[in-house]
Amino acid sequence: MKLIADNLRITLPHIQDALRNENPEPIRELVLKCLEKKPWAIDINTGPLGKFPKQGMTFFIKTVEGVTDLPLVIDTSNPEAMKAGVEVASNEIILNGFSLEPRKVNNILPLAKACNSKIVGFLLFPNSNVPKSESERLEIALELFEKAEAAGVAKEQIIVDPIVPPLAWDDGIVQARSILSVIQRLPELLGFPVETMGGLSNLTTGAMDKNKKTLLEQVYISMLAAVGLNYALIDILNDQTVKVAKAAGILSKEQLFSWEMIPSK
Amino acid sequence: MKLIADNLRITLPHIQDALRNENPEPIRELVLKCLEKKPWAIDINTGPLGKFPKQGMTFFIKTVEGVTDLPLVIDTSNPEAMKAGVEVASNEIILNGFSLEPRKVNNILPLAKACNSKIVGFLLFPNSNVPKSESERLEIALELFEKAEAAGVAKEQIIVDPIVPPLAWDDGIVQARSILSVIQRLPELLGFPVETMGGLSNLTTGAMDKNKKTLLEQVYISMLAAVGLNYALIDILNDQTVKVAKAAGILSKEQLFSWEMIPSK
Repeated sequence: MKLIADNLRITLPHIQDALRNENPEPIRELVLKCLEKKPWAIDINTGPLGKFPKQGMTFFIKTVEGVTDLPLVIDTSNPEAMKAGVEVASNEIILNGFSLEPRKVNNILPLAKACNSKIVGFLLFPNSNVPKSESERLEIALELFEKAEAAGVAKEQIIVDPIVPPLAWDDGIVQARSILSVIQRLPELLGFPVETMGGLSNLTTGAMDKNKKTLLEQVYISMLAAVGLNYALIDILNDQTVKVAKAAGILSKEQLFSWEMIPSK
Repeated sequence: MKLIADNLRITLPHIQDALRNENPEPIRELVLKCLEKKPWAIDINTGPLGKFPKQGMTFFIKTVEGVTDLPLVIDTSNPEAMKAGVEVASNEIILNGFSLEPRKVNNILPLAKACNSKIVGFLLFPNSNVPKSESERLEIALELFEKAEAAGVAKEQIIVDPIVPPLAWDDGIVQARSILSVIQRLPELLGFPVETMGGLSNLTTGAMDKNKKTLLEQVYISMLAAVGLNYALIDILNDQTVKVAKAAGILSKEQLFSWEMIPSK
Protein backbone atom coordinates (compact mmCIF):
# COMPACT_ATOMS: atom_id res chain seq x y z
CA MET A 1 0.00 0.00 0.00
CA LYS A 2 1.55 3.26 -1.14
CA LEU A 3 1.01 6.23 1.17
CA ILE A 4 0.23 9.60 -0.40
CA ALA A 5 0.42 12.71 1.76
CA ASP A 6 -2.91 14.54 1.58
CA ASN A 7 -1.62 17.46 3.64
CA LEU A 8 -1.14 20.10 0.97
CA ARG A 9 -4.58 21.57 0.40
CA ILE A 10 -5.88 24.95 -0.64
CA THR A 11 -8.47 24.83 2.14
CA LEU A 12 -5.72 25.55 4.67
CA PRO A 13 -5.77 29.34 5.19
CA HIS A 14 -1.97 29.71 5.13
CA ILE A 15 -1.77 27.75 1.88
CA GLN A 16 -4.49 29.90 0.32
CA ASP A 17 -2.55 32.98 1.43
CA ALA A 18 0.64 31.53 -0.06
CA LEU A 19 -1.10 31.20 -3.42
CA ARG A 20 -2.62 34.66 -3.22
CA ASN A 21 0.75 36.24 -2.46
CA GLU A 22 2.68 33.89 -4.73
CA ASN A 23 4.83 33.13 -1.71
CA PRO A 24 6.27 29.61 -2.06
CA GLU A 25 7.68 29.43 1.46
CA PRO A 26 4.63 28.05 3.39
CA ILE A 27 4.09 25.38 0.72
CA ARG A 28 7.75 24.42 0.68
CA GLU A 29 7.77 24.22 4.47
CA LEU A 30 4.70 21.99 4.61
CA VAL A 31 5.99 19.66 1.91
CA LEU A 32 9.41 19.39 3.58
CA LYS A 33 7.69 18.35 6.82
CA CYS A 34 5.73 15.72 4.89
CA LEU A 35 8.86 14.42 3.16
CA GLU A 36 10.41 13.58 6.54
CA LYS A 37 7.67 10.96 6.93
CA LYS A 38 8.62 9.27 3.67
CA PRO A 39 5.37 9.29 1.71
CA TRP A 40 5.29 7.62 -1.69
CA ALA A 41 3.80 10.74 -3.32
CA ILE A 42 2.43 14.21 -2.57
CA ASP A 43 -1.19 15.08 -3.34
CA ILE A 44 -1.53 18.69 -4.45
CA ASN A 45 -5.10 19.65 -3.72
CA THR A 46 -5.39 23.00 -5.40
CA GLY A 47 -9.16 23.14 -5.69
CA PRO A 48 -10.56 24.60 -8.94
CA LEU A 49 -8.21 27.63 -8.83
CA GLY A 50 -10.84 30.17 -9.89
CA LYS A 51 -9.88 32.72 -12.49
CA PHE A 52 -6.21 31.91 -12.99
CA PRO A 53 -6.01 28.12 -13.08
CA LYS A 54 -2.89 27.96 -15.19
CA GLN A 55 -0.94 30.45 -13.16
CA GLY A 56 -2.06 28.90 -9.86
CA MET A 57 -1.29 25.33 -10.85
CA THR A 58 2.09 26.29 -12.26
CA PHE A 59 2.95 28.02 -9.00
CA PHE A 60 1.96 24.96 -6.95
CA ILE A 61 3.71 22.38 -9.10
CA LYS A 62 6.93 24.38 -9.51
CA THR A 63 7.07 25.08 -5.79
CA VAL A 64 6.63 21.42 -4.84
CA GLU A 65 9.02 20.19 -7.53
CA GLY A 66 11.54 22.60 -6.05
CA VAL A 67 11.85 20.35 -3.00
CA THR A 68 11.04 16.83 -4.19
CA ASP A 69 11.28 14.36 -7.06
CA LEU A 70 8.42 12.25 -5.69
CA PRO A 71 5.34 11.55 -7.82
CA LEU A 72 2.71 14.30 -7.63
CA VAL A 73 -1.02 13.67 -7.46
CA ILE A 74 -2.70 16.60 -9.18
CA ASP A 75 -5.94 17.05 -7.33
CA THR A 76 -8.35 19.45 -8.99
CA SER A 77 -11.83 19.30 -10.49
CA ASN A 78 -11.03 22.03 -13.03
CA PRO A 79 -9.98 20.69 -16.44
CA GLU A 80 -8.08 23.91 -17.18
CA ALA A 81 -6.04 23.59 -14.01
CA MET A 82 -5.43 19.88 -14.67
CA LYS A 83 -4.24 20.64 -18.17
CA ALA A 84 -1.81 23.23 -16.82
CA GLY A 85 -0.52 20.69 -14.30
CA VAL A 86 0.06 18.10 -17.00
CA GLU A 87 1.94 20.60 -19.11
CA VAL A 88 4.14 22.06 -16.43
CA ALA A 89 5.03 19.04 -14.27
CA SER A 90 8.38 17.27 -14.60
CA ASN A 91 7.87 14.68 -11.85
CA GLU A 92 5.76 11.57 -12.42
CA ILE A 93 2.10 12.57 -12.07
CA ILE A 94 -1.25 10.99 -11.28
CA LEU A 95 -4.38 12.86 -12.32
CA ASN A 96 -6.94 13.04 -9.50
CA GLY A 97 -9.28 12.62 -11.16
CA PHE A 98 -12.34 12.02 -13.27
CA SER A 99 -15.88 10.72 -12.78
CA LEU A 100 -18.85 10.04 -15.07
CA GLU A 101 -19.57 13.78 -15.04
CA PRO A 102 -19.49 14.69 -18.78
CA ARG A 103 -17.22 17.70 -18.22
CA LYS A 104 -14.61 15.42 -16.69
CA VAL A 105 -15.02 12.58 -19.15
CA ASN A 106 -14.60 15.04 -22.01
CA ASN A 107 -11.91 17.31 -20.64
CA ILE A 108 -9.93 15.53 -17.92
CA LEU A 109 -9.88 11.89 -19.02
CA PRO A 110 -8.24 12.66 -22.42
CA LEU A 111 -5.33 14.32 -20.58
CA ALA A 112 -4.37 10.89 -19.21
CA LYS A 113 -4.04 9.61 -22.77
CA ALA A 114 -2.07 12.65 -23.87
CA CYS A 115 0.50 12.33 -21.08
CA ASN A 116 0.20 8.54 -20.59
CA SER A 117 -0.21 8.97 -16.84
CA LYS A 118 -2.40 7.21 -14.32
CA ILE A 119 -5.75 8.80 -13.55
CA VAL A 120 -8.07 8.33 -10.59
CA GLY A 121 -11.68 7.42 -11.39
CA PHE A 122 -14.26 8.20 -8.73
CA LEU A 123 -17.20 5.88 -8.06
CA LEU A 124 -19.77 8.67 -8.25
CA PHE A 125 -22.88 9.19 -10.33
CA PRO A 126 -22.61 11.65 -13.27
CA ASN A 127 -24.22 14.31 -11.04
CA SER A 128 -21.50 13.64 -8.41
CA ASN A 129 -23.92 11.96 -6.02
CA VAL A 130 -22.49 9.10 -3.98
CA PRO A 131 -23.90 5.66 -4.85
CA LYS A 132 -25.48 3.82 -1.95
CA SER A 133 -25.21 0.17 -2.91
CA GLU A 134 -22.45 -2.18 -3.87
CA SER A 135 -24.01 -3.03 -7.21
CA GLU A 136 -24.34 0.66 -8.09
CA ARG A 137 -20.66 1.09 -7.29
CA LEU A 138 -19.63 -1.83 -9.44
CA GLU A 139 -21.79 -0.63 -12.34
CA ILE A 140 -20.19 2.81 -12.14
CA ALA A 141 -16.75 1.18 -12.12
CA LEU A 142 -17.60 -0.69 -15.32
CA GLU A 143 -18.79 2.55 -16.91
CA LEU A 144 -15.59 4.35 -15.91
CA PHE A 145 -13.55 1.68 -17.67
CA GLU A 146 -15.80 1.93 -20.74
CA LYS A 147 -15.28 5.69 -20.87
CA ALA A 148 -11.54 5.18 -20.48
CA GLU A 149 -11.42 2.66 -23.30
CA ALA A 150 -13.42 4.97 -25.54
CA ALA A 151 -10.92 7.74 -24.77
CA GLY A 152 -7.97 5.51 -25.61
CA VAL A 153 -6.82 5.32 -21.99
CA ALA A 154 -5.51 1.85 -21.05
CA LYS A 155 -7.31 0.10 -18.21
CA GLU A 156 -4.00 -0.17 -16.34
CA GLN A 157 -3.89 3.64 -16.20
CA ILE A 158 -7.09 3.80 -14.14
CA ILE A 159 -6.97 3.90 -10.35
CA VAL A 160 -10.45 3.45 -8.89
CA ASP A 161 -11.35 5.58 -5.87
CA PRO A 162 -14.52 4.14 -4.30
CA ILE A 163 -14.96 7.25 -2.06
CA VAL A 164 -14.62 6.39 1.61
CA PRO A 165 -17.75 7.73 3.36
CA PRO A 166 -17.97 9.61 6.66
CA LEU A 167 -18.91 7.09 9.35
CA ALA A 168 -21.07 9.79 10.88
CA TRP A 169 -23.55 9.44 8.01
CA ASP A 170 -26.73 7.63 8.99
CA ASP A 171 -25.61 4.62 7.00
CA GLY A 172 -21.87 5.36 7.21
CA ILE A 173 -20.96 1.98 8.68
CA VAL A 174 -22.85 0.12 5.96
CA GLN A 175 -21.24 2.25 3.25
CA ALA A 176 -17.77 1.76 4.75
CA ARG A 177 -18.30 -2.02 4.61
CA SER A 178 -19.49 -1.74 1.03
CA ILE A 179 -16.28 0.08 0.06
CA LEU A 180 -14.18 -2.78 1.46
CA SER A 181 -16.19 -5.30 -0.49
CA VAL A 182 -15.97 -3.27 -3.71
CA ILE A 183 -12.17 -3.00 -3.46
CA GLN A 184 -11.96 -6.74 -2.92
CA ARG A 185 -14.29 -7.61 -5.82
CA LEU A 186 -13.07 -5.23 -8.53
CA PRO A 187 -10.08 -7.32 -9.73
CA GLU A 188 -12.24 -10.37 -10.28
CA LEU A 189 -15.07 -8.38 -11.84
CA LEU A 190 -12.74 -6.64 -14.28
CA GLY A 191 -10.46 -9.63 -14.80
CA PHE A 192 -7.18 -7.86 -14.09
CA PRO A 193 -5.46 -6.44 -10.98
CA VAL A 194 -7.45 -3.18 -10.83
CA GLU A 195 -5.65 -0.55 -8.79
CA THR A 196 -7.54 1.31 -6.07
CA MET A 197 -7.05 4.48 -4.05
CA GLY A 198 -8.81 5.55 -0.88
CA GLY A 199 -8.77 8.74 1.14
CA LEU A 200 -8.90 8.35 4.89
CA SER A 201 -9.70 11.93 5.83
CA ASN A 202 -13.43 11.68 5.12
CA LEU A 203 -13.95 8.69 7.35
CA THR A 204 -14.09 10.51 10.65
CA THR A 205 -15.42 13.91 9.68
CA GLY A 206 -18.29 15.00 11.87
CA ALA A 207 -18.91 14.81 15.56
CA MET A 208 -16.78 12.17 17.21
CA ASP A 209 -14.28 12.34 20.03
CA LYS A 210 -10.60 12.19 19.16
CA ASN A 211 -9.89 8.74 20.62
CA LYS A 212 -12.72 7.24 18.63
CA LYS A 213 -11.50 8.94 15.45
CA THR A 214 -7.98 7.59 15.89
CA LEU A 215 -9.25 4.11 16.66
CA LEU A 216 -11.55 3.99 13.65
CA GLU A 217 -8.93 5.41 11.28
CA GLN A 218 -6.39 2.84 12.34
CA VAL A 219 -8.80 -0.05 12.10
CA TYR A 220 -10.15 1.03 8.72
CA ILE A 221 -6.75 1.65 7.13
CA SER A 222 -5.74 -1.87 8.19
CA MET A 223 -8.92 -3.24 6.66
CA LEU A 224 -8.36 -1.31 3.42
CA ALA A 225 -4.87 -2.81 3.25
CA ALA A 226 -6.25 -6.30 3.88
CA VAL A 227 -8.65 -6.10 0.94
CA GLY A 228 -5.83 -4.91 -1.31
CA LEU A 229 -5.96 -1.11 -1.49
CA ASN A 230 -2.99 0.12 -3.55
CA TYR A 231 -2.82 3.82 -2.66
CA ALA A 232 -3.90 5.47 0.60
CA LEU A 233 -4.37 9.24 0.78
CA ILE A 234 -3.48 9.97 4.36
CA ASP A 235 -2.45 12.69 6.80
CA ILE A 236 1.22 11.78 6.68
CA LEU A 237 1.92 13.96 9.72
CA ASN A 238 -0.30 11.77 11.92
CA ASP A 239 2.43 9.48 13.25
CA GLN A 240 0.10 7.00 14.90
CA THR A 241 -2.04 6.36 11.83
CA VAL A 242 0.98 6.27 9.52
CA LYS A 243 2.65 3.68 11.74
CA VAL A 244 -0.44 1.48 11.51
CA ALA A 245 -0.73 2.04 7.76
CA LYS A 246 2.89 1.02 7.21
CA ALA A 247 2.53 -2.14 9.30
CA ALA A 248 -0.70 -2.99 7.47
CA GLY A 249 0.98 -2.43 4.12
CA ILE A 250 3.75 -4.82 5.05
CA LEU A 251 1.30 -7.50 6.14
CA SER A 252 -0.87 -7.21 3.07
CA LYS A 253 1.36 -7.09 0.02
CA GLU A 254 4.55 -8.65 -1.18
CA GLN A 255 7.25 -6.08 -0.69
CA LEU A 256 10.72 -5.83 0.69
CA PHE A 257 10.55 -6.05 4.41
CA SER A 258 12.73 -5.65 7.45
CA TRP A 259 11.64 -5.49 11.06
CA GLU A 260 13.09 -1.99 11.28
CA MET A 261 10.29 -0.78 9.02
CA ILE A 262 7.85 -1.27 11.88
CA PRO A 263 8.54 1.50 14.35
CA SER A 264 8.45 0.68 18.03
CA LYS A 265 7.05 3.92 19.34
CA MET B 1 -16.52 -11.25 14.26
CA LYS B 2 -17.21 -13.13 17.47
CA LEU B 3 -14.59 -12.77 20.18
CA ILE B 4 -13.65 -15.86 22.16
CA ALA B 5 -11.62 -15.44 25.35
CA ASP B 6 -8.47 -17.57 25.10
CA ASN B 7 -7.44 -16.78 28.67
CA LEU B 8 -8.30 -20.03 30.43
CA ARG B 9 -5.39 -22.34 29.74
CA ILE B 10 -3.76 -25.19 31.60
CA THR B 11 -0.34 -23.75 30.84
CA LEU B 12 -0.93 -21.04 33.46
CA PRO B 13 0.64 -22.37 36.69
CA HIS B 14 -2.24 -21.28 38.93
CA ILE B 15 -4.75 -22.99 36.63
CA GLN B 16 -2.69 -26.18 36.61
CA ASP B 17 -2.60 -26.02 40.42
CA ALA B 18 -6.36 -25.48 40.50
CA LEU B 19 -6.85 -28.68 38.51
CA ARG B 20 -4.37 -30.64 40.63
CA ASN B 21 -6.09 -29.56 43.84
CA GLU B 22 -9.59 -29.70 42.37
CA ASN B 23 -9.98 -26.13 43.57
CA PRO B 24 -12.49 -24.32 41.31
CA GLU B 25 -11.82 -20.86 42.74
CA PRO B 26 -8.89 -19.69 40.51
CA ILE B 27 -10.75 -20.84 37.39
CA ARG B 28 -13.97 -19.17 38.47
CA GLU B 29 -12.10 -15.96 39.26
CA LEU B 30 -10.36 -15.88 35.86
CA VAL B 31 -13.58 -16.60 33.96
CA LEU B 32 -15.48 -13.93 35.89
CA LYS B 33 -12.80 -11.38 34.95
CA CYS B 34 -13.16 -12.43 31.32
CA LEU B 35 -16.95 -12.18 31.44
CA GLU B 36 -16.71 -8.49 32.37
CA LYS B 37 -15.25 -7.91 28.90
CA LYS B 38 -18.25 -9.51 27.20
CA PRO B 39 -16.70 -12.23 25.06
CA TRP B 40 -18.97 -14.30 22.83
CA ALA B 41 -17.58 -17.57 24.23
CA ILE B 42 -14.93 -19.01 26.56
CA ASP B 43 -12.20 -21.26 25.22
CA ILE B 44 -11.28 -23.95 27.75
CA ASN B 45 -7.76 -25.02 26.87
CA THR B 46 -7.28 -28.04 29.09
CA GLY B 47 -4.40 -29.61 27.21
CA PRO B 48 -4.47 -33.43 26.88
CA LEU B 49 -5.25 -33.93 30.61
CA GLY B 50 -2.86 -36.88 31.06
CA LYS B 51 -4.11 -39.85 33.05
CA PHE B 52 -7.54 -38.63 34.11
CA PRO B 53 -9.00 -36.90 31.08
CA LYS B 54 -12.62 -37.48 32.04
CA GLN B 55 -12.24 -36.27 35.59
CA GLY B 56 -10.19 -33.26 34.55
CA MET B 57 -12.52 -32.17 31.77
CA THR B 58 -15.59 -32.60 33.95
CA PHE B 59 -13.99 -30.42 36.61
CA PHE B 60 -13.18 -27.68 34.09
CA ILE B 61 -16.56 -27.68 32.35
CA LYS B 62 -18.61 -27.81 35.53
CA THR B 63 -16.58 -25.04 37.10
CA VAL B 64 -16.96 -22.73 34.09
CA GLU B 65 -20.64 -23.56 33.65
CA GLY B 66 -21.05 -22.59 37.31
CA VAL B 67 -20.48 -18.95 36.35
CA THR B 68 -21.65 -18.58 32.74
CA ASP B 69 -24.16 -19.73 30.14
CA LEU B 70 -21.92 -18.62 27.26
CA PRO B 71 -20.83 -21.10 24.59
CA LEU B 72 -17.74 -23.09 25.53
CA VAL B 73 -14.95 -23.95 23.14
CA ILE B 74 -13.51 -27.28 24.26
CA ASP B 75 -9.84 -27.07 23.41
CA THR B 76 -8.00 -30.36 23.74
CA SER B 77 -6.09 -32.72 21.48
CA ASN B 78 -7.09 -35.78 23.50
CA PRO B 79 -10.13 -37.62 22.11
CA GLU B 80 -10.93 -39.03 25.57
CA ALA B 81 -11.00 -35.58 27.11
CA MET B 82 -13.07 -34.22 24.22
CA LYS B 83 -15.57 -37.05 24.61
CA ALA B 84 -15.90 -36.28 28.31
CA GLY B 85 -16.48 -32.62 27.51
CA VAL B 86 -19.21 -33.43 25.02
CA GLU B 87 -20.94 -35.68 27.55
CA VAL B 88 -20.78 -33.38 30.52
CA ALA B 89 -21.40 -29.91 29.00
CA SER B 90 -24.80 -28.24 29.21
CA ASN B 91 -23.84 -24.97 27.49
CA GLU B 92 -23.53 -24.74 23.70
CA ILE B 93 -20.15 -26.17 22.72
CA ILE B 94 -17.63 -25.94 19.90
CA LEU B 95 -15.08 -28.73 19.57
CA ASN B 96 -11.55 -27.36 19.09
CA GLY B 97 -10.67 -29.32 17.11
CA PHE B 98 -9.59 -31.84 14.53
CA SER B 99 -7.00 -32.07 11.77
CA LEU B 100 -6.07 -34.65 9.13
CA GLU B 101 -4.21 -36.57 11.84
CA PRO B 102 -5.89 -40.02 11.72
CA ARG B 103 -6.36 -40.18 15.50
CA LYS B 104 -8.41 -36.98 15.34
CA VAL B 105 -10.32 -37.85 12.19
CA ASN B 106 -11.30 -41.19 13.75
CA ASN B 107 -11.95 -40.17 17.33
CA ILE B 108 -12.71 -36.45 17.54
CA LEU B 109 -14.54 -35.68 14.30
CA PRO B 110 -17.31 -38.24 14.95
CA LEU B 111 -18.11 -36.51 18.25
CA ALA B 112 -19.31 -33.49 16.26
CA LYS B 113 -21.84 -35.71 14.52
CA ALA B 114 -22.92 -37.32 17.77
CA CYS B 115 -23.63 -34.00 19.50
CA ASN B 116 -24.42 -31.96 16.37
CA SER B 117 -21.99 -29.23 17.41
CA LYS B 118 -19.57 -27.11 15.44
CA ILE B 119 -16.01 -28.34 15.21
CA VAL B 120 -12.81 -26.50 14.37
CA GLY B 121 -10.70 -27.97 11.56
CA PHE B 122 -7.02 -27.02 11.52
CA LEU B 123 -5.17 -26.41 8.27
CA LEU B 124 -2.29 -28.72 9.20
CA PHE B 125 -0.73 -31.74 7.52
CA PRO B 126 -1.64 -35.18 8.95
CA ASN B 127 1.68 -35.13 10.87
CA SER B 128 0.68 -31.73 12.35
CA ASN B 129 3.24 -29.80 10.31
CA VAL B 130 2.20 -26.34 9.20
CA PRO B 131 1.69 -25.99 5.43
CA LYS B 132 3.81 -23.31 3.81
CA SER B 133 1.86 -22.32 0.73
CA GLU B 134 -1.59 -21.08 -0.02
CA SER B 135 -2.37 -23.97 -2.36
CA GLU B 136 -1.33 -26.50 0.30
CA ARG B 137 -3.66 -24.78 2.75
CA LEU B 138 -6.57 -24.85 0.35
CA GLU B 139 -5.97 -28.52 -0.49
CA ILE B 140 -5.95 -29.38 3.22
CA ALA B 141 -9.20 -27.45 3.65
CA LEU B 142 -10.81 -29.51 0.90
CA GLU B 143 -9.61 -32.72 2.56
CA LEU B 144 -11.00 -31.62 5.93
CA PHE B 145 -14.42 -31.14 4.35
CA GLU B 146 -14.14 -34.55 2.64
CA LYS B 147 -13.35 -36.20 5.97
CA ALA B 148 -16.26 -34.36 7.56
CA GLU B 149 -18.67 -35.48 4.87
CA ALA B 150 -17.46 -39.08 5.20
CA ALA B 151 -18.11 -38.87 8.95
CA GLY B 152 -21.62 -37.51 8.43
CA VAL B 153 -20.70 -34.05 9.75
CA ALA B 154 -22.43 -31.26 7.80
CA LYS B 155 -20.13 -28.73 6.14
CA GLU B 156 -21.86 -25.95 8.07
CA GLN B 157 -20.58 -27.52 11.30
CA ILE B 158 -16.95 -27.00 10.27
CA ILE B 159 -15.05 -23.89 11.34
CA VAL B 160 -11.71 -23.68 9.54
CA ASP B 161 -8.72 -22.49 11.57
CA PRO B 162 -5.91 -21.62 9.14
CA ILE B 163 -3.37 -21.36 12.01
CA VAL B 164 -2.03 -17.83 12.36
CA PRO B 165 1.79 -18.07 12.28
CA PRO B 166 4.30 -16.30 14.53
CA LEU B 167 5.57 -13.26 12.64
CA ALA B 168 8.98 -13.98 14.12
CA TRP B 169 9.33 -17.03 11.87
CA ASP B 170 11.74 -16.50 8.98
CA ASP B 171 8.80 -16.38 6.59
CA GLY B 172 6.22 -15.27 9.18
CA ILE B 173 5.13 -12.20 7.23
CA VAL B 174 4.59 -14.21 4.06
CA GLN B 175 2.64 -16.85 5.98
CA ALA B 176 0.52 -14.21 7.71
CA ARG B 177 -0.41 -12.77 4.31
CA SER B 178 -1.24 -16.25 3.04
CA ILE B 179 -3.64 -16.78 5.96
CA LEU B 180 -5.55 -13.61 5.03
CA SER B 181 -5.84 -14.75 1.45
CA VAL B 182 -6.98 -18.24 2.44
CA ILE B 183 -9.75 -16.86 4.69
CA GLN B 184 -10.91 -14.64 1.85
CA ARG B 185 -10.86 -17.41 -0.77
CA LEU B 186 -12.41 -20.31 1.15
CA PRO B 187 -16.09 -19.32 0.68
CA GLU B 188 -15.72 -19.13 -3.07
CA LEU B 189 -13.62 -22.29 -3.28
CA LEU B 190 -16.12 -24.28 -1.23
CA GLY B 191 -19.18 -22.56 -2.65
CA PHE B 192 -20.81 -21.65 0.66
CA PRO B 193 -20.07 -19.17 3.48
CA VAL B 194 -17.33 -21.21 5.17
CA GLU B 195 -16.80 -20.12 8.76
CA THR B 196 -13.28 -19.40 9.95
CA MET B 197 -11.53 -19.01 13.30
CA GLY B 198 -8.16 -17.50 14.06
CA GLY B 199 -6.07 -17.29 17.21
CA LEU B 200 -4.16 -14.08 17.73
CA SER B 201 -1.83 -15.22 20.49
CA ASN B 202 0.66 -16.97 18.20
CA LEU B 203 1.20 -13.93 16.03
CA THR B 204 3.61 -12.10 18.27
CA THR B 205 5.32 -14.92 20.14
CA GLY B 206 9.09 -14.59 20.07
CA ALA B 207 11.40 -11.70 20.51
CA MET B 208 9.70 -8.40 19.84
CA ASP B 209 9.24 -5.31 21.95
CA LYS B 210 5.85 -4.68 23.49
CA ASN B 211 4.88 -1.66 21.38
CA LYS B 212 5.57 -3.59 18.20
CA LYS B 213 3.54 -6.56 19.46
CA THR B 214 0.55 -4.39 20.26
CA LEU B 215 0.75 -2.58 16.93
CA LEU B 216 0.98 -5.79 14.90
CA GLU B 217 -1.83 -7.50 16.85
CA GLN B 218 -4.15 -4.57 16.30
CA VAL B 219 -3.36 -4.27 12.62
CA TYR B 220 -3.67 -8.01 12.00
CA ILE B 221 -6.96 -8.44 13.87
CA SER B 222 -8.40 -5.60 11.76
CA MET B 223 -7.16 -7.32 8.62
CA LEU B 224 -8.62 -10.66 9.70
CA ALA B 225 -11.97 -8.93 10.22
CA ALA B 226 -11.74 -7.29 6.80
CA VAL B 227 -11.31 -10.61 5.01
CA GLY B 228 -14.27 -12.06 6.88
CA LEU B 229 -12.97 -13.98 9.91
CA ASN B 230 -15.96 -15.22 11.95
CA TYR B 231 -14.37 -16.13 15.29
CA ALA B 232 -11.29 -14.57 16.88
CA LEU B 233 -9.55 -16.30 19.78
CA ILE B 234 -8.14 -13.41 21.72
CA ASP B 235 -6.77 -12.28 25.08
CA ILE B 236 -10.02 -10.71 26.20
CA LEU B 237 -8.27 -8.97 29.09
CA ASN B 238 -6.11 -6.93 26.70
CA ASP B 239 -8.35 -3.85 26.53
CA GLN B 240 -6.51 -2.16 23.71
CA THR B 241 -6.64 -5.12 21.32
CA VAL B 242 -10.24 -5.94 22.24
CA LYS B 243 -11.29 -2.35 21.51
CA VAL B 244 -9.72 -2.59 18.06
CA ALA B 245 -11.23 -6.04 17.45
CA LYS B 246 -14.71 -4.79 18.34
CA ALA B 247 -14.43 -1.75 16.07
CA ALA B 248 -13.11 -3.97 13.26
CA GLY B 249 -15.97 -6.40 13.78
CA ILE B 250 -18.49 -3.59 13.46
CA LEU B 251 -16.89 -2.32 10.26
CA SER B 252 -16.68 -5.72 8.64
CA LYS B 253 -19.97 -7.51 9.16
CA GLU B 254 -23.63 -6.72 9.22
CA GLN B 255 -24.61 -6.58 12.86
CA LEU B 256 -26.55 -4.40 15.21
CA PHE B 257 -24.58 -1.30 15.85
CA SER B 258 -24.62 1.76 18.01
CA TRP B 259 -21.85 4.30 18.46
CA GLU B 260 -21.67 3.38 22.12
CA MET B 261 -20.21 0.01 21.11
CA ILE B 262 -17.00 1.76 20.16
CA PRO B 263 -15.32 2.76 23.39
CA SER B 264 -13.67 6.16 23.58
CA LYS B 265 -10.76 5.26 25.81
